[in-house]
Amino acid sequence: MAYVTATEKDLHEKPNEETVSVLNPYLMQMKADILYHFALGTETHDFPSMFGDVKFVCVGGSPSRMKAFALYIAEELKLGDSQNDIPNICAGTDRYAMYKVGPVLSISHGMGIPSISIMLHELIKLLYHSKCSNVTVIRIGTSGGIGIEPGSVVITNQSVDASFKPQFEQIILGKTVVRSTKLNADLAKELDQCGKEINEFNTVIGNTMCTLDFYEGQARLDGAICSYTEKEKMDYLRAAYNAGIRNIEMESSVFAAMCNISGLRAAVVCVALLNRLEGDQISSSHNILVDYQQRPQKLVGFFIKKQINDPCLSL
Amino acid sequence: MAYVTATEKDLHEKPNEETVSVLNPYLMQMKADILYHFALGTETHDFPSMFGDVKFVCVGGSPSRMKAFALYIAEELKLGDSQNDIPNICAGTDRYAMYKVGPVLSISHGMGIPSISIMLHELIKLLYHSKCSNVTVIRIGTSGGIGIEPGSVVITNQSVDASFKPQFEQIILGKTVVRSTKLNADLAKELDQCGKEINEFNTVIGNTMCTLDFYEGQARLDGAICSYTEKEKMDYLRAAYNAGIRNIEMESSVFAAMCNISGLRAAVVCVALLNRLEGDQISSSHNILVDYQQRPQKLVGFFIKKQINDPCLSL
Repeated sequence: MAYVTATEKDLHEKPNEETVSVLNPYLMQMKADILYHFALGTETHDFPSMFGDVKFVCVGGSPSRMKAFALYIAEELKLGDSQNDIPNICAGTDRYAMYKVGPVLSISHGMGIPSISIMLHELIKLLYHSKCSNVTVIRIGTSGGIGIEPGSVVITNQSVDASFKPQFEQIILGKTVVRSTKLNADLAKELDQCGKEINEFNTVIGNTMCTLDFYEGQARLDGAICSYTEKEKMDYLRAAYNAGIRNIEMESSVFAAMCNISGLRAAVVCVALLNRLEGDQISSSHNILVDYQQRPQKLVGFFIKKQINDPCLSL
Repeated sequence: MAYVTATEKDLHEKPNEETVSVLNPYLMQMKADILYHFALGTETHDFPSMFGDVKFVCVGGSPSRMKAFALYIAEELKLGDSQNDIPNICAGTDRYAMYKVGPVLSISHGMGIPSISIMLHELIKLLYHSKCSNVTVIRIGTSGGIGIEPGSVVITNQSVDASFKPQFEQIILGKTVVRSTKLNADLAKELDQCGKEINEFNTVIGNTMCTLDFYEGQARLDGAICSYTEKEKMDYLRAAYNAGIRNIEMESSVFAAMCNISGLRAAVVCVALLNRLEGDQISSSHNILVDYQQRPQKLVGFFIKKQINDPCLSL
């Protein structure tokens, strides 16, 4: 694995904040590239003209939520009419959904590390083939809070694994490779400042635990299988709180790791649907959950609008 | 982790092939249970009357493919009219889609271990709350073949990890628990026999490697990141072939482990969309890929019809 280490190290020593990098010498030799899970290809689609102006990519689990976000952004940026329908660029597949509104791309990624990892490989290739520069990627999602009020929005300081370590273990050719899950601290602060300016809901910066499972992996007592006691569950969640963890979700670690390697400015903004120190079931009413899920959208929409209108930023 | 081991051991020593087990003492004490990712709940839905007659559950990644399978089964079993629409039982969410045709449930599970694991927790609870008995669960999916002709259908002998071991490592309360990925050998043979009787495509029984990633995790050279050489890739895939592996996908290990623990008869039937010894990109035409994807559906549809019409089986 010496090759990985050296190349990733080079990239971190000379961060290129302008263009999107692919760390793959083979890709550059390929005449054509099919992004199978997007149902897009370089021979069938003109990537630079379709995506060359993209500056913000917002990703989230649910396809309908990402469509709602695209419609919201269209209204906020006064680009198009939010009452009109907006085409799904990935209409040729049902693996992911993708919408574009001016410089903003909104993409669903399904649930869990493997699902978002496929999407990110193809997104990074899409941005590379499109010759995009200065791209910010933000995950807007849902999560379980730890020791915070339901409805609070957590901006991730660092993504940690189930042992509370800020790393992502990836298995390559059967061997474990450890990657950093560092996120952009300035971007997190800017997003937190946006939350304060909106002043409609609680916003906190905290660590986010990323797990491979929703039930046993997050110490829930309500799965089909549960082999630990309630006391063991509470001890684990309290230890997580003491390690600075304020929410648990299932995608942030590989998201941070892949954005890091590819030179993308990245952030994770997730609403907490419940406080896991008080229960496991997501039992709030439909209307309350809809309201909660709009909060990361509102915060990130506010941020994008501010960035686009900032005369000091050349977007 | 002594508690897990003892209870799982008990279950394997006294397999209960009749009813669906939940290995969770807390669940039995709960007055109500919300299956959040299905948008179903025991207080809002009458599970025994909705699902009590289910004998076969077929699961696959794509929601549109699982709807097509439900329509195909409706036609095969002469239950309803395949030209009519069929309602999505999980219409209240876009996390999964679920269709029911007589004793057959067809559910999508998204991509990757975490996504199918959430679905399986809620499916096993659904079958338990519905008091279902004698249930067979079959994953019908797509995969990358190793050393087999594209379009071949692989019936999994055992699911192995990226080190070719027949096990699934699950992280619970931050600690690793190892679970068996054994599948039902008789069921695999019956399915293989169905393939021979259909006699329209190649069917093989082989080991299936289950990975956490589609690009680096499967030694592809066409991802956004690639840190190994073409020779290292080929050495890894050839070693996999020599270990009896005939295809690679992303869900079988946790599927086998959870079905094992819950006393469900389970099988994995995946078509190979390409031969990974010959390339990485899925570049066959749309029509060929559609034909390939119908093969596991055809095989499993044939099997279900045969089972239902067998006077010796009391379904």
